[in-house]
Amino acid sequence: MTAVDGVVAGERAVHPRRLHVIIPAGGAGTRLWPLSRKANPKFLLDLAGIGFSLLQQTLLRMQPLAASITIVTGSSHKSAVCAQVNELLEAGLLESSLEVNIVVEPSGRDSMPAIGLAAALLARDHGERALVGSFAADHAIESAEDFQDAVRSAVAAAEKGFVTTVGIEPKFASTAFGYIQPSTEVVSPGAYRVVRFVEKPAQEVASRYLKDGYLWNAGMFVMRVDVLLRHLASFSTSMVQGLEEMAAAWGPLDRCQDAGTQSGDSDRENPSRGEALGHWWPRMEKIAIDHAIAEPVADLGEVAVVRTAPSVGWSDVGDFDAIADLSNEDAGIPPLTIDSPRSVIRVGDHKQVVVIGLPDAVVIDTQDALLVTTRQNAQRVKEAVDGLNESGRAHFT
Amino acid sequence: MTAVDGVVAGERAVHPRRLHVIIPAGGAGTRLWPLSRKANPKFLLDLAGIGFSLLQQTLLRMQPLAASITIVTGSSHKSAVCAQVNELLEAGLLESSLEVNIVVEPSGRDSMPAIGLAAALLARDHGERALVGSFAADHAIESAEDFQDAVRSAVAAAEKGFVTTVGIEPKFASTAFGYIQPSTEVVSPGAYRVVRFVEKPAQEVASRYLKDGYLWNAGMFVMRVDVLLRHLASFSTSMVQGLEEMAAAWGPLDRCQDAGTQSGDSDRENPSRGEALGHWWPRMEKIAIDHAIAEPVADLGEVAVVRTAPSVGWSDVGDFDAIADLSNEDAGIPPLTIDSPRSVIRVGDHKQVVVIGLPDAVVIDTQDALLVTTRQNAQRVKEAVDGLNESGRAHFT
Repeated sequence: MTAVDGVVAGERAVHPRRLHVIIPAGGAGTRLWPLSRKANPKFLLDLAGIGFSLLQQTLLRMQPLAASITIVTGSSHKSAVCAQVNELLEAGLLESSLEVNIVVEPSGRDSMPAIGLAAALLARDHGERALVGSFAADHAIESAEDFQDAVRSAVAAAEKGFVTTVGIEPKFASTAFGYIQPSTEVVSPGAYRVVRFVEKPAQEVASRYLKDGYLWNAGMFVMRVDVLLRHLASFSTSMVQGLEEMAAAWGPLDRCQDAGTQSGDSDRENPSRGEALGHWWPRMEKIAIDHAIAEPVADLGEVAVVRTAPSVGWSDVGDFDAIADLSNEDAGIPPLTIDSPRSVIRVGDHKQVVVIGLPDAVVIDTQDALLVTTRQNAQRVKEAVDGLNESGRAHFT
Repeated sequence: MTAVDGVVAGERAVHPRRLHVIIPAGGAGTRLWPLSRKANPKFLLDLAGIGFSLLQQTLLRMQPLAASITIVTGSSHKSAVCAQVNELLEAGLLESSLEVNIVVEPSGRDSMPAIGLAAALLARDHGERALVGSFAADHAIESAEDFQDAVRSAVAAAEKGFVTTVGIEPKFASTAFGYIQPSTEVVSPGAYRVVRFVEKPAQEVASRYLKDGYLWNAGMFVMRVDVLLRHLASFSTSMVQGLEEMAAAWGPLDRCQDAGTQSGDSDRENPSRGEALGHWWPRMEKIAIDHAIAEPVADLGEVAVVRTAPSVGWSDVGDFDAIADLSNEDAGIPPLTIDSPRSVIRVGDHKQVVVIGLPDAVVIDTQDALLVTTRQNAQRVKEAVDGLNESGRAHFT
């Protein structure tokens, strides 16, 4: 399969692997309910139907560039994450020599504390000039090679001291993403100084951004840990102190390969870790790395952006409208659609679906829940999940 | 429950039961797929969610007027029909003294041969001035009393020699029904001479019919058997000959109560019946009683119509638009609808449904099939069933 080839291929040996990959695996993916659930969130799902979850695809895509990979996830997802990692190890798709760490955060406090903790641990083990890069666990990318090319350029810019982001060449004037305004100033081969980051725009503004060469902000950042911590100290010295104290108390990083022989509760086996987490984690400000680092550092002129090739085929798989662009279809019984073009239908492999007179229909069936809407309403699925939570039906979310 | 009370109530003792009720139980109900299936058709379903199938409701509704009830159905449905009859007998809801016959037709040849055969059998047993009335097995009626009142008036007109139909006071300018044009001439208390029957009209024509006092044709006819056979002879003497020869060879009518002790194949136990059916049934013209009798006899001025009270609450439950007017809802988990008013949702009792941004949505889920459409497209469900049959997926229909 082409998609799998794309994921696992890459010039592994040509470029030295000096990037410590951090994968924050959080986020409920509520816009993909009922496929994505609290207990089985989007990053664990094989939404493209190619045999690998989005997390597994991310691991395979990053491996050729990775000096190590560190997954940061919640305690409720640790065992599922490790099962997926170990599946790739056992299949020989992840090299057993690759350091794959798992860091369990006691509660979700957005991306900055998660990435910061992993970065502090990697600096502890690999020195503070270690290069770290954070990549979402739940995006889809058609051409791993194109993406790896962009990340290699980002690594080079990051070594020069830039906070470097990978910007996505926009395919249309989306209002679902923030944008990056690049300058024309090349700061490193393929990397441009960033003028500013902007929030999700209104439709008219998005069209202007597209015309003016802005890029989609996919929230991927590559930088040296010393650079990260220096900028983070400008934002909050206490957060930096907390991250470093937690890292110092952490003990050895955990590996999924060892999970089978452990109790699964590393904090209890490691009292100093538990103590440091118990003290510092609740004091970590709940904030995204975009706001804590990327935006203020862009104002200083110290953010660079590498643009992906148009052929990279990036998707955040953010909703059922986006999912329609993934290559696969259900393996099962073909749906019968009458006057219902562009429908998105996922019902497993045993059920005959009929859709009549509903263009752009979205029909998502699972054992205990069924969603019917349209692609135009795809972003509103979140409202439904909120509605279920608020009406005592959280067990369906 | 009010609905059940409505079904079983009626002034049983006041009016002599002299009507031999015929219930043709055929028709696939393809517009109600996937609830209605070849093997489990509409008349066997409890579409109103009140604990009785449409057939059972029909039996209970007609009992207070019935000298006997004769159900005509296909061989594939005989055991299911008898199971439903016996359920009512065992519950004491059908009186054990009531003669409930089952006539199995070898193949569906529309309503005229089915009703004609039952009528010929009843004339054989009860004399040719016996009054017969045919009533669909798959309609819903809110007020059994109102309906029984209309049928009583129809019986009186039929005794005078009229082919008498029960016309439904229209609720709106439907294009899904044929219409009856009544005159103002009263031929019997509550019964008017019929000018003509007209086919399903276009929308503009339907609006005019409504203004001009036309009635919906629900295909219900009450008449003496001698009147029926006389008119039928004008249409086809050989059909009358065939019906009478089959009735003569039939042997005793079968009762559902006895089905448990029989082989289920009465033809084999009764060679003369099998021989007559084998000869005559394939020669029966496939035609509806409307075309064979009602329309030509109306031209002779010998059809009367009794109009139901507006409060009768009749529905042919013809599609998922009509089903919305039935009183019940799923007993299970309430669906969550966002900007989707007037939705029709049937998914059993175990599944959480969410519908977003789809007014008039129709969502019908079963174990192996799922239909999504709108009430405006409800009539087109038949197209989908045709499509499944034509594409090698008849096992879903």
